[in-house]
Amino acid sequence: MTEQSARQQLVAGAADMIRRRGLNATSIREVAKHSGAPLGSTYHYFPGGKHELAAEAVRYAGDTVAGILAAKLRIGPVEGLRAFLALWREVITSTDYQAGCPVLAVSIEETPVGEERPAAVTAAGTAFTTWSSQLAESLRHHGVARSRAERLATLVVAAAEGAVAMCRAQRSTKPLDHITTELTTLLSAAVDQRRTD
Amino acid sequence: MTEQSARQQLVAGAADMIRRRGLNATSIREVAKHSGAPLGSTYHYFPGGKHELAAEAVRYAGDTVAGILAAKLRIGPVEGLRAFLALWREVITSTDYQAGCPVLAVSIEETPVGEERPAAVTAAGTAFTTWSSQLAESLRHHGVARSRAERLATLVVAAAEGAVAMCRAQRSTKPLDHITTELTTLLSAAVDQRRTD
Repeated sequence: MTEQSARQQLVAGAADMIRRRGLNATSIREVAKHSGAPLGSTYHYFPGGKHELAAEAVRYAGDTVAGILAAKLRIGPVEGLRAFLALWREVITSTDYQAGCPVLAVSIEETPVGEERPAAVTAAGTAFTTWSSQLAESLRHHGVARSRAERLATLVVAAAEGAVAMCRAQRSTKPLDHITTELTTLLSAAVDQRRTD
Repeated sequence: MTEQSARQQLVAGAADMIRRRGLNATSIREVAKHSGAPLGSTYHYFPGGKHELAAEAVRYAGDTVAGILAAKLRIGPVEGLRAFLALWREVITSTDYQAGCPVLAVSIEETPVGEERPAAVTAAGTAFTTWSSQLAESLRHHGVARSRAERLATLVVAAAEGAVAMCRAQRSTKPLDHITTELTTLLSAAVDQRRTD
């Protein structure tokens, strides 16, 4: 295995553990085990320890989703929306509701007072901003006013993230299916409205 | 302190810890400390240990929100929506983005294969269903068709939960403010549409 792929495997392994159990419950020892890597290698690649690895895992997840979103948004905003929601549906169904979004998972853990904000939380904020901006940009490109585009894009990301958690708690895809119907109608109307102005 | 209030204090303390750091990172020892209760009392009130206490904490949070929602929904669905979103905005701003929703927090933690689903996760599913049903019922009462009411209600709960996480990651209330504007317009239109049919 090359240096690059061994390192990449640890990052992907950390992202997978975090999307399943959250940041606090993920230890560097278990990431190494989960990824089939020797424990020593984690400190070789990530001298900053768990928080450095977690930040990379969040960036990796953020970039992966951004890549899928960018490809589909080239067709149009509604296609981008559908791909974004289908992606999360695939995550929960392919893992029997055991996994969700690692970006959400790191966002909801407290930063002890006086301590620096973990780099992973900052990376999570950036991932959310990136996805929203991609969607907003596409909506604007299809004629939706800037402020409305920004609000709709935020609604899409927020609803998808919340729905994934609801699906896991309810062991049902219904929440994601419900929001897919509503958001598809909403975004289609926003784009069409402009066309008929 | 009465038996009832000592027990209640532990439940409220557990809900507060879970909404800040999640279920995995919450220990019964720290809940006792956080609540100013002797460790022994936690085992007295919750012989089932952490998972019993966590399930009660989720039910307590679920019921508290349901109570606020019910009061405001008596005025109307849009008023209920506004109160629901204002409540989450207050949680994040009053804690400097350190706390979110305990129901979401327990929903996104993996249940190890072969193990029973923690009662707290089941309670989380019930809380989400309760809030959605309350909103859907109010929308139906104001003339929105059953299936649409259900979808809109799910969208509201999902978007609020996701937006709280986004606010914490971005240290900004913008995500909640954006979805408040969009959802208010959407629900008002759904109710008005019926009125002008």
